Amino acid sequence: MGVLLTVAYDGTDYNGWQVQKNGTTVCGLLEGALAGVLAGRSFSILGASRTDAGVHALGQRVHLRTDGTIPIPLDRLPNVINAALPRDVAVTAAISVPDSFHPISDAKSKTYIYKIHNQPHRCPLRCRYSAFIPNALDFAAMQPACRHFVGEFDFAAFCATGSPVKSTVRRINFLEVSQQEQDGLLEMRVNGNGFLYNMVRIIAGTLVGVGLNKILPDDIPAIIAGKDRAKAGKTMPPQGLTLLEVFY
Amino acid sequence: MGVLLTVAYDGTDYNGWQVQKNGTTVCGLLEGALAGVLAGRSFSILGASRTDAGVHALGQRVHLRTDGTIPIPLDRLPNVINAALPRDVAVTAAISVPDSFHPISDAKSKTYIYKIHNQPHRCPLRCRYSAFIPNALDFAAMQPACRHFVGEFDFAAFCATGSPVKSTVRRINFLEVSQQEQDGLLEMRVNGNGFLYNMVRIIAGTLVGVGLNKILPDDIPAIIAGKDRAKAGKTMPPQGLTLLEVFY
Repeated sequence: MGVLLTVAYDGTDYNGWQVQKNGTTVCGLLEGALAGVLAGRSFSILGASRTDAGVHALGQRVHLRTDGTIPIPLDRLPNVINAALPRDVAVTAAISVPDSFHPISDAKSKTYIYKIHNQPHRCPLRCRYSAFIPNALDFAAMQPACRHFVGEFDFAAFCATGSPVKSTVRRINFLEVSQQEQDGLLEMRVNGNGFLYNMVRIIAGTLVGVGLNKILPDDIPAIIAGKDRAKAGKTMPPQGLTLLEVFY
Repeated sequence: MGVLLTVAYDGTDYNGWQVQKNGTTVCGLLEGALAGVLAGRSFSILGASRTDAGVHALGQRVHLRTDGTIPIPLDRLPNVINAALPRDVAVTAAISVPDSFHPISDAKSKTYIYKIHNQPHRCPLRCRYSAFIPNALDFAAMQPACRHFVGEFDFAAFCATGSPVKSTVRRINFLEVSQQEQDGLLEMRVNGNGFLYNMVRIIAGTLVGVGLNKILPDDIPAIIAGKDRAKAGKTMPPQGLTLLEVFY
Protein backbone atom coordinates (compact mmCIF):
# COMPACT_ATOMS: atom_id res chain seq x y z
CA MET A 1 0.00 0.00 0.00
CA GLY A 2 1.26 3.50 -0.81
CA VAL A 3 0.52 6.65 1.17
CA LEU A 4 1.78 10.17 0.57
CA LEU A 5 2.30 12.11 3.79
CA THR A 6 2.66 15.87 4.04
CA VAL A 7 5.21 16.60 6.74
CA ALA A 8 6.08 19.90 8.45
CA TYR A 9 9.08 20.48 10.68
CA ASP A 10 11.15 23.07 12.46
CA GLY A 11 14.60 22.01 11.26
CA THR A 12 16.54 23.95 13.92
CA ASP A 13 17.37 20.97 16.09
CA TYR A 14 17.77 18.35 13.32
CA ASN A 15 20.64 17.30 11.15
CA GLY A 16 18.51 17.59 8.01
CA TRP A 17 15.97 15.24 6.48
CA GLN A 18 18.06 12.30 5.33
CA VAL A 19 19.26 9.63 7.76
CA GLN A 20 23.03 9.82 8.23
CA LYS A 21 25.74 8.74 10.63
CA ASN A 22 25.63 11.67 13.04
CA GLY A 23 22.79 13.51 14.70
CA THR A 24 19.05 13.12 14.74
CA THR A 25 17.35 13.51 11.37
CA VAL A 26 13.69 14.14 10.62
CA CYS A 27 13.52 10.99 8.49
CA GLY A 28 14.97 8.91 11.32
CA LEU A 29 12.54 10.40 13.80
CA LEU A 30 9.57 9.74 11.52
CA GLU A 31 10.72 6.15 10.94
CA GLY A 32 10.81 5.63 14.68
CA ALA A 33 7.28 6.99 15.11
CA LEU A 34 5.97 4.88 12.21
CA ALA A 35 7.55 1.72 13.58
CA GLY A 36 5.33 2.09 16.63
CA VAL A 37 2.21 3.12 14.72
CA LEU A 38 2.54 0.27 12.19
CA ALA A 39 3.15 -2.22 15.01
CA GLY A 40 5.82 -4.41 13.43
CA ARG A 41 4.67 -4.26 9.79
CA SER A 42 7.60 -3.75 7.43
CA PHE A 43 7.63 -0.35 5.73
CA SER A 44 9.89 2.15 4.00
CA ILE A 45 9.72 5.92 3.60
CA LEU A 46 11.23 8.22 0.98
CA GLY A 47 11.13 12.04 1.14
CA ALA A 48 10.63 14.27 -1.90
CA SER A 49 13.41 16.63 -0.85
CA ARG A 50 16.61 16.14 1.15
CA THR A 51 16.41 19.34 3.15
CA ASP A 52 19.68 20.31 4.83
CA ALA A 53 20.45 20.65 8.52
CA GLY A 54 18.53 23.60 9.97
CA VAL A 55 16.17 23.97 6.99
CA HIS A 56 12.42 23.94 7.73
CA ALA A 57 9.46 22.44 5.89
CA LEU A 58 5.75 23.10 5.73
CA GLY A 59 5.07 20.85 2.74
CA GLN A 60 7.68 18.09 2.63
CA ARG A 61 6.17 15.01 0.95
CA VAL A 62 7.02 11.53 2.20
CA HIS A 63 6.10 8.33 0.43
CA LEU A 64 5.24 5.56 2.89
CA ARG A 65 5.19 2.03 1.48
CA THR A 66 3.99 -0.97 3.42
CA ASP A 67 3.64 -4.62 2.44
CA GLY A 68 0.20 -4.99 3.96
CA THR A 69 -2.55 -2.60 4.84
CA ILE A 70 -2.22 0.22 7.36
CA PRO A 71 -4.33 -0.50 10.46
CA ILE A 72 -5.58 3.11 10.74
CA PRO A 73 -7.97 5.06 8.44
CA LEU A 74 -6.04 7.63 6.40
CA ASP A 75 -7.97 10.60 7.82
CA ARG A 76 -6.91 9.61 11.34
CA LEU A 77 -3.34 8.64 10.43
CA PRO A 78 -1.79 12.15 10.89
CA ASN A 79 -3.12 12.47 14.45
CA VAL A 80 -1.95 8.98 15.38
CA ILE A 81 1.56 9.57 14.00
CA ASN A 82 1.73 13.05 15.57
CA ALA A 83 1.04 11.61 19.00
CA ALA A 84 4.36 9.75 18.61
CA LEU A 85 6.33 12.78 17.38
CA PRO A 86 7.86 15.76 19.24
CA ARG A 87 6.14 19.10 18.70
CA ASP A 88 8.68 20.31 16.14
CA VAL A 89 7.66 17.63 13.60
CA ALA A 90 4.11 16.93 12.41
CA VAL A 91 2.22 15.07 9.69
CA THR A 92 -0.50 17.36 8.33
CA ALA A 93 -2.07 15.17 5.62
CA ALA A 94 -2.14 11.59 4.32
CA ILE A 95 -3.50 10.49 0.94
CA SER A 96 -3.43 7.21 -0.95
CA VAL A 97 -1.18 6.99 -4.02
CA PRO A 98 -0.85 4.31 -6.75
CA ASP A 99 1.89 1.65 -6.56
CA SER A 100 3.70 3.32 -9.46
CA PHE A 101 4.08 6.62 -7.58
CA HIS A 102 7.59 7.97 -6.94
CA PRO A 103 7.95 11.01 -4.64
CA ILE A 104 11.09 12.39 -6.32
CA SER A 105 10.76 11.60 -10.02
CA ASP A 106 7.02 12.34 -10.10
CA ALA A 107 7.49 15.82 -8.56
CA LYS A 108 6.73 18.45 -11.20
CA SER A 109 7.95 21.42 -9.18
CA LYS A 110 8.80 22.62 -5.68
CA THR A 111 8.27 25.96 -3.96
CA TYR A 112 10.66 27.29 -1.34
CA ILE A 113 10.54 30.51 0.65
CA TYR A 114 13.57 32.28 2.02
CA LYS A 115 12.99 34.84 4.79
CA ILE A 116 15.28 37.71 5.67
CA HIS A 117 14.90 39.94 8.69
CA ASN A 118 16.27 43.34 7.69
CA GLN A 119 16.30 45.67 10.68
CA PRO A 120 19.15 47.27 12.67
CA HIS A 121 18.89 44.81 15.58
CA ARG A 122 18.24 41.09 15.61
CA CYS A 123 14.77 39.97 16.66
CA PRO A 124 14.63 36.94 18.98
CA LEU A 125 11.15 36.05 17.68
CA ARG A 126 12.36 35.97 14.07
CA CYS A 127 15.90 34.60 14.14
CA ARG A 128 14.76 30.99 14.28
CA TYR A 129 12.97 31.26 10.93
CA SER A 130 14.84 33.96 9.04
CA ALA A 131 18.34 35.20 8.24
CA PHE A 132 19.26 38.48 9.92
CA ILE A 133 20.82 41.28 7.88
CA PRO A 134 21.30 44.57 9.77
CA ASN A 135 22.39 46.65 6.75
CA ALA A 136 19.45 48.19 4.88
CA LEU A 137 18.64 46.24 1.71
CA ASP A 138 17.65 48.10 -1.46
CA PHE A 139 14.37 46.34 -2.12
CA ALA A 140 13.73 48.40 -5.29
CA ALA A 141 16.87 46.84 -6.82
CA MET A 142 16.07 43.28 -5.70
CA GLN A 143 12.70 43.17 -7.45
CA PRO A 144 13.91 43.63 -11.07
CA ALA A 145 16.79 41.19 -10.40
CA CYS A 146 14.31 38.34 -9.92
CA ARG A 147 13.07 38.10 -13.51
CA HIS A 148 16.58 37.25 -14.78
CA PHE A 149 16.42 33.90 -12.97
CA VAL A 150 13.12 32.82 -14.55
CA GLY A 151 13.55 30.28 -17.34
CA GLU A 152 15.62 27.18 -18.08
CA PHE A 153 19.32 27.76 -17.50
CA ASP A 154 22.49 25.96 -16.56
CA PHE A 155 22.65 27.03 -12.92
CA ALA A 156 26.21 25.72 -12.31
CA ALA A 157 27.12 29.10 -10.74
CA PHE A 158 24.35 28.51 -8.18
CA CYS A 159 25.43 25.08 -6.99
CA ALA A 160 27.66 24.30 -4.02
CA THR A 161 31.06 23.29 -5.40
CA GLY A 162 31.78 19.58 -5.42
CA SER A 163 28.14 18.44 -5.74
CA PRO A 164 28.02 15.36 -7.98
CA VAL A 165 25.10 15.87 -10.41
CA LYS A 166 24.66 14.76 -14.03
CA SER A 167 23.22 18.05 -15.21
CA THR A 168 23.12 21.50 -13.67
CA VAL A 169 20.28 22.65 -15.95
CA ARG A 170 17.10 23.56 -14.08
CA ARG A 171 13.95 25.52 -14.85
CA ILE A 172 12.76 28.29 -12.53
CA ASN A 173 9.06 29.00 -13.05
CA PHE A 174 8.79 32.01 -10.78
CA LEU A 175 10.91 34.01 -8.39
CA GLU A 176 9.64 36.99 -6.48
CA VAL A 177 10.54 39.02 -3.42
CA SER A 178 8.01 40.74 -1.21
CA GLN A 179 8.43 43.11 1.69
CA GLN A 180 6.56 43.64 4.94
CA GLU A 181 8.12 47.00 5.59
CA GLN A 182 6.66 47.50 9.05
CA ASP A 183 8.21 44.27 10.33
CA GLY A 184 11.45 44.58 8.37
CA LEU A 185 10.74 41.24 6.71
CA LEU A 186 11.73 40.30 3.18
CA GLU A 187 10.49 37.07 1.68
CA MET A 188 11.79 35.39 -1.45
CA ARG A 189 9.53 32.80 -3.02
CA VAL A 190 10.82 30.52 -5.75
CA ASN A 191 9.27 27.67 -7.72
CA GLY A 192 11.26 25.42 -10.03
CA ASN A 193 11.32 21.93 -11.51
CA GLY A 194 14.26 21.04 -9.28
CA PHE A 195 17.05 22.69 -7.36
CA LEU A 196 20.78 22.00 -7.18
CA TYR A 197 22.56 21.63 -3.86
CA ASN A 198 22.28 24.98 -1.98
CA MET A 199 20.77 26.59 -5.10
CA VAL A 200 17.94 28.42 -3.30
CA ARG A 201 20.30 29.70 -0.62
CA ILE A 202 22.80 30.93 -3.25
CA ILE A 203 20.04 32.65 -5.24
CA ALA A 204 18.92 34.31 -1.98
CA GLY A 205 22.52 35.36 -1.31
CA THR A 206 22.81 36.80 -4.82
CA LEU A 207 19.62 38.83 -4.31
CA VAL A 208 21.06 40.04 -1.00
CA GLY A 209 24.17 41.06 -2.93
CA VAL A 210 21.88 43.10 -5.20
CA GLY A 211 20.12 44.56 -2.13
CA LEU A 212 23.51 45.63 -0.73
CA ASN A 213 24.36 47.18 -4.14
CA LYS A 214 27.32 44.84 -4.58
CA ILE A 215 25.70 43.16 -7.60
CA LEU A 216 23.67 45.02 -10.25
CA PRO A 217 20.34 43.46 -11.28
CA ASP A 218 21.51 43.40 -14.90
CA ASP A 219 24.67 41.50 -13.91
CA ILE A 220 22.59 38.38 -13.22
CA PRO A 221 22.43 37.03 -16.82
CA ALA A 222 26.24 37.16 -17.07
CA ILE A 223 26.62 35.50 -13.66
CA ILE A 224 24.35 32.66 -14.80
CA ALA A 225 26.09 32.37 -18.20
CA GLY A 226 29.56 32.38 -16.59
CA LYS A 227 28.84 29.17 -14.60
CA ASP A 228 31.34 30.33 -11.98
CA ARG A 229 30.25 29.80 -8.38
CA ALA A 230 32.59 32.54 -7.21
CA LYS A 231 30.68 35.19 -9.19
CA ALA A 232 27.30 34.46 -7.54
CA GLY A 233 26.39 35.65 -4.05
CA LYS A 234 27.03 34.02 -0.71
CA THR A 235 25.22 30.89 0.48
CA MET A 236 22.63 32.19 2.92
CA PRO A 237 22.23 30.35 6.26
CA PRO A 238 19.76 27.44 6.55
CA GLN A 239 17.32 28.93 9.08
CA GLY A 240 15.82 31.32 6.51
CA LEU A 241 14.78 28.47 4.21
CA THR A 242 11.48 26.61 4.25
CA LEU A 243 10.26 23.96 1.78
CA LEU A 244 6.73 25.18 1.21
CA GLU A 245 5.22 22.82 -1.31
CA VAL A 246 5.93 19.90 -3.67
CA PHE A 247 3.66 19.73 -6.71
CA TYR A 248 2.82 16.44 -8.45
CA MET B 1 22.23 58.13 34.72
CA GLY B 2 18.95 56.62 33.50
CA VAL B 3 18.46 54.70 30.28
CA LEU B 4 15.31 53.04 28.99
CA LEU B 5 16.03 49.88 27.02
CA THR B 6 13.59 48.15 24.69
CA VAL B 7 14.10 44.41 25.06
CA ALA B 8 12.78 41.55 22.92
CA TYR B 9 12.93 37.89 23.85
CA ASP B 10 11.74 34.43 22.96
CA GLY B 11 10.50 33.32 26.37
CA THR B 12 10.39 29.59 25.56
CA ASP B 13 13.55 28.64 27.41
CA TYR B 14 13.25 31.13 30.29
CA ASN B 15 11.55 31.07 33.63
CA GLY B 16 9.93 34.45 32.97
CA TRP B 17 11.29 37.98 33.34
CA GLN B 18 11.76 38.38 37.07
CA VAL B 19 14.78 36.90 38.87
CA GLN B 20 13.74 34.05 41.16
CA LYS B 21 15.18 31.05 42.92
CA ASN B 22 14.90 28.50 40.13
CA GLY B 23 15.73 28.60 36.47
CA THR B 24 17.25 31.19 34.18
CA THR B 25 15.27 34.42 33.84
CA VAL B 26 15.55 37.11 31.19
CA CYS B 27 16.25 39.74 33.85
CA GLY B 28 19.06 37.62 35.31
CA LEU B 29 20.55 37.06 31.87
CA LEU B 30 20.43 40.77 31.04
CA GLU B 31 22.02 41.67 34.38
CA GLY B 32 24.86 39.29 33.60
CA ALA B 33 25.41 40.85 30.17
CA LEU B 34 25.28 44.40 31.60
CA ALA B 35 27.76 43.55 34.34
CA GLY B 36 30.31 42.85 31.64
CA VAL B 37 29.37 45.82 29.44
CA LEU B 38 29.44 48.29 32.36
CA ALA B 39 32.79 46.90 33.54
CA GLY B 40 32.30 46.95 37.28
CA ARG B 41 30.11 50.07 37.58
CA SER B 42 27.21 49.53 39.96
CA PHE B 43 23.81 49.45 38.28
CA SER B 44 20.25 48.22 38.70
CA ILE B 45 17.54 47.28 36.21
CA LEU B 46 13.75 47.21 36.52
CA GLY B 47 11.38 45.85 33.91
CA ALA B 48 8.01 47.39 33.05
CA SER B 49 6.26 44.03 33.01
CA ARG B 50 6.88 40.77 34.88
CA THR B 51 6.20 38.46 31.97
CA ASP B 52 5.61 34.84 32.99
CA ALA B 53 7.62 31.75 32.10
CA GLY B 54 7.28 31.02 28.40
CA VAL B 55 5.80 34.44 27.50
CA HIS B 56 7.55 36.42 24.75
CA ALA B 57 8.28 40.12 24.35
CA LEU B 58 8.95 42.44 21.45
CA GLY B 59 8.63 45.68 23.44
CA GLN B 60 9.53 45.00 27.08
CA ARG B 61 10.92 48.19 28.62
CA VAL B 62 13.78 48.02 31.09
CA HIS B 63 15.01 50.93 33.17
CA LEU B 64 18.77 50.85 33.65
CA ARG B 65 20.18 53.05 36.40
CA THR B 66 23.88 53.59 36.98
CA ASP B 67 25.74 55.76 39.46
CA GLY B 68 28.15 57.14 36.92
CA THR B 69 28.05 57.55 33.16
CA ILE B 70 27.77 54.66 30.72
CA PRO B 71 31.03 54.25 28.78
CA ILE B 72 29.25 53.61 25.45
CA PRO B 73 27.20 56.03 23.28
CA LEU B 74 23.48 55.21 23.51
CA ASP B 75 23.11 54.50 19.79
CA ARG B 76 25.80 51.80 20.04
CA LEU B 77 24.64 50.40 23.39
CA PRO B 78 22.14 47.84 21.95
CA ASN B 79 24.78 46.24 19.71
CA VAL B 80 27.32 46.07 22.53
CA ILE B 81 24.85 44.46 24.94
CA ASN B 82 23.54 42.09 22.24
CA ALA B 83 27.04 40.78 21.64
CA ALA B 84 26.91 39.49 25.24
CA LEU B 85 23.42 37.94 24.96
CA PRO B 86 22.22 34.65 23.43
CA ARG B 87 20.23 34.97 20.22
CA ASP B 88 16.85 34.58 21.95
CA VAL B 89 17.23 37.88 23.84
CA ALA B 90 18.08 41.26 22.27
CA VAL B 91 18.08 44.96 23.12
CA THR B 92 16.55 46.86 20.20
CA ALA B 93 16.67 50.47 21.44
CA ALA B 94 18.19 52.63 24.20
CA ILE B 95 17.09 56.16 25.09
CA SER B 96 17.96 58.53 27.92
CA VAL B 97 15.28 59.17 30.57
CA PRO B 98 15.10 61.68 33.43
CA ASP B 99 16.08 60.68 36.96
CA SER B 100 12.43 60.85 38.03
CA PHE B 101 11.38 58.17 35.50
CA HIS B 102 9.76 54.97 36.77
CA PRO B 103 9.19 52.13 34.27
CA ILE B 104 6.12 50.70 36.03
CA SER B 105 4.24 53.66 37.51
CA ASP B 106 4.92 55.91 34.50
CA ALA B 107 3.52 53.35 32.04
CA LYS B 108 0.24 54.68 30.59
CA SER B 109 -0.75 51.49 28.81
CA LYS B 110 0.54 48.19 27.46
CA THR B 111 -0.31 46.22 24.35
CA TYR B 112 -0.21 42.44 24.24
CA ILE B 113 -0.94 40.06 21.38
CA TYR B 114 -2.19 36.52 21.81
CA LYS B 115 -1.81 34.18 18.84
CA ILE B 116 -3.85 31.06 18.19
CA HIS B 117 -3.16 28.50 15.49
CA ASN B 118 -6.52 27.08 14.48
CA GLN B 119 -6.07 24.25 11.99
CA PRO B 120 -6.71 20.51 12.20
CA HIS B 121 -3.03 19.59 12.76
CA ARG B 122 -0.35 21.33 14.79
CA CYS B 123 2.23 23.30 12.83
CA PRO B 124 5.85 22.92 14.01
CA LEU B 125 6.70 26.38 12.67
CA ARG B 126 3.91 28.02 14.70
CA CYS B 127 3.71 26.12 17.97
CA ARG B 128 6.57 28.04 19.55
CA TYR B 129 4.71 31.36 19.23
CA SER B 130 1.02 30.42 19.32
CA ALA B 131 -1.49 28.22 21.11
CA PHE B 132 -2.80 25.33 19.01
CA ILE B 133 -6.55 24.68 18.87
CA PRO B 134 -7.60 21.95 16.40
CA ASN B 135 -11.38 22.51 16.71
CA ALA B 136 -12.68 25.15 14.30
CA LEU B 137 -13.28 28.47 16.06
CA ASP B 138 -16.32 30.59 15.17
CA PHE B 139 -14.52 33.80 14.32
CA ALA B 140 -17.80 35.60 13.55
CA ALA B 141 -18.85 35.10 17.19
CA MET B 142 -15.49 36.13 18.66
CA GLN B 143 -15.49 39.56 17.02
CA PRO B 144 -18.63 40.99 18.69
CA ALA B 145 -17.52 39.51 22.04
CA CYS B 146 -14.50 41.82 22.10
CA ARG B 147 -16.36 45.10 22.57
CA HIS B 148 -17.81 43.95 25.92
CA PHE B 149 -14.32 44.03 27.44
CA VAL B 150 -13.60 47.63 26.45
CA GLY B 151 -13.96 50.10 29.31
CA GLU B 152 -13.11 50.33 33.01
CA PHE B 153 -14.30 47.30 34.95
CA ASP B 154 -13.52 45.22 37.97
CA PHE B 155 -11.82 42.29 36.21
CA ALA B 156 -11.70 40.01 39.29
CA ALA B 157 -13.17 37.19 37.16
CA PHE B 158 -10.14 37.50 34.87
CA CYS B 159 -7.44 37.21 37.48
CA ALA B 160 -5.64 34.05 38.58
CA THR B 161 -7.00 33.08 41.98
CA GLY B 162 -4.81 33.94 44.93
CA SER B 163 -3.08 36.95 43.35
CA PRO B 164 -2.52 39.60 46.02
CA VAL B 165 -3.55 42.96 44.50
CA LYS B 166 -5.13 46.04 46.08
CA SER B 167 -7.62 46.62 43.29
CA THR B 168 -8.83 44.44 40.45
CA VAL B 169 -10.18 47.43 38.48
CA ARG B 170 -8.47 47.96 35.13
CA ARG B 171 -9.27 49.86 31.94
CA ILE B 172 -9.13 48.12 28.56
CA ASN B 173 -8.72 50.67 25.76
CA PHE B 174 -9.09 48.28 22.86
CA LEU B 175 -9.48 44.58 22.19
CA GLU B 176 -9.74 43.10 18.74
CA VAL B 177 -9.31 39.76 17.02
CA SER B 178 -8.12 39.36 13.46
CA GLN B 179 -7.86 36.33 11.26
CA GLN B 180 -5.40 35.21 8.60
CA GLU B 181 -7.69 32.57 7.23
CA GLN B 182 -5.21 31.05 4.78
CA ASP B 183 -2.70 30.33 7.56
CA GLY B 184 -5.30 29.37 10.18
CA LEU B 185 -3.99 32.12 12.45
CA LEU B 186 -6.09 34.14 14.87
CA GLU B 187 -4.57 37.09 16.65
CA MET B 188 -6.01 38.91 19.64
CA ARG B 189 -4.60 42.36 20.34
CA VAL B 190 -5.38 44.11 23.60
CA ASN B 191 -4.33 47.45 25.08
CA GLY B 192 -5.05 48.48 28.65
CA ASN B 193 -3.75 50.64 31.48
CA GLY B 194 -2.66 47.54 33.36
CA PHE B 195 -3.35 43.83 33.54
CA LEU B 196 -4.00 41.50 36.45
CA TYR B 197 -2.10 38.25 36.84
CA ASN B 198 -2.95 36.00 33.84
CA MET B 199 -5.62 38.51 32.74
CA VAL B 200 -4.68 38.54 29.04
CA ARG B 201 -4.48 34.74 28.92
CA ILE B 202 -7.90 34.41 30.63
CA ILE B 203 -9.48 36.95 28.25
CA ALA B 204 -7.99 34.94 25.36
CA GLY B 205 -9.42 31.75 26.88
CA THR B 206 -12.83 33.39 27.23
CA LEU B 207 -12.78 34.44 23.57
CA VAL B 208 -11.81 30.87 22.68
CA GLY B 209 -14.82 29.73 24.72
CA VAL B 210 -16.94 32.03 22.54
CA GLY B 211 -15.26 30.64 19.41
CA LEU B 212 -16.13 27.11 20.54
CA ASN B 213 -19.72 28.26 21.15
CA LYS B 214 -19.46 27.43 24.87
CA ILE B 215 -19.88 31.08 25.86
CA LEU B 216 -22.20 33.53 24.09
CA PRO B 217 -20.78 36.97 23.20
CA ASP B 218 -23.57 38.61 25.19
CA ASP B 219 -22.68 36.54 28.28
CA ILE B 220 -19.48 38.56 28.72
CA PRO B 221 -20.97 41.52 30.66
CA ALA B 222 -22.48 39.13 33.24
CA ILE B 223 -19.20 37.20 33.49
CA ILE B 224 -17.35 40.46 34.21
CA ALA B 225 -20.02 41.66 36.67
CA GLY B 226 -20.09 38.30 38.50
CA LYS B 227 -16.38 38.58 39.49
CA ASP B 228 -16.21 34.77 39.58
CA ARG B 229 -13.04 33.32 38.04
CA ALA B 230 -14.85 30.00 37.43
CA LYS B 231 -17.31 31.64 35.02
CA ALA B 232 -14.62 33.04 32.70
CA GLY B 233 -12.74 30.92 30.16
CA LYS B 234 -9.59 28.84 30.62
CA THR B 235 -6.15 30.35 31.10
CA MET B 236 -4.50 29.96 27.72
CA PRO B 237 -0.90 28.66 27.60
CA PRO B 238 2.02 31.13 27.78
CA GLN B 239 3.57 30.53 24.35
CA GLY B 240 0.75 32.39 22.56
CA LEU B 241 1.40 35.61 24.48
CA THR B 242 3.75 38.43 23.46
CA LEU B 243 4.21 41.78 25.19
CA LEU B 244 4.20 44.05 22.16
CA GLU B 245 4.54 47.58 23.52
CA VAL B 246 4.63 49.68 26.68
CA PHE B 247 3.44 53.27 26.25
CA TYR B 248 4.73 56.14 28.40
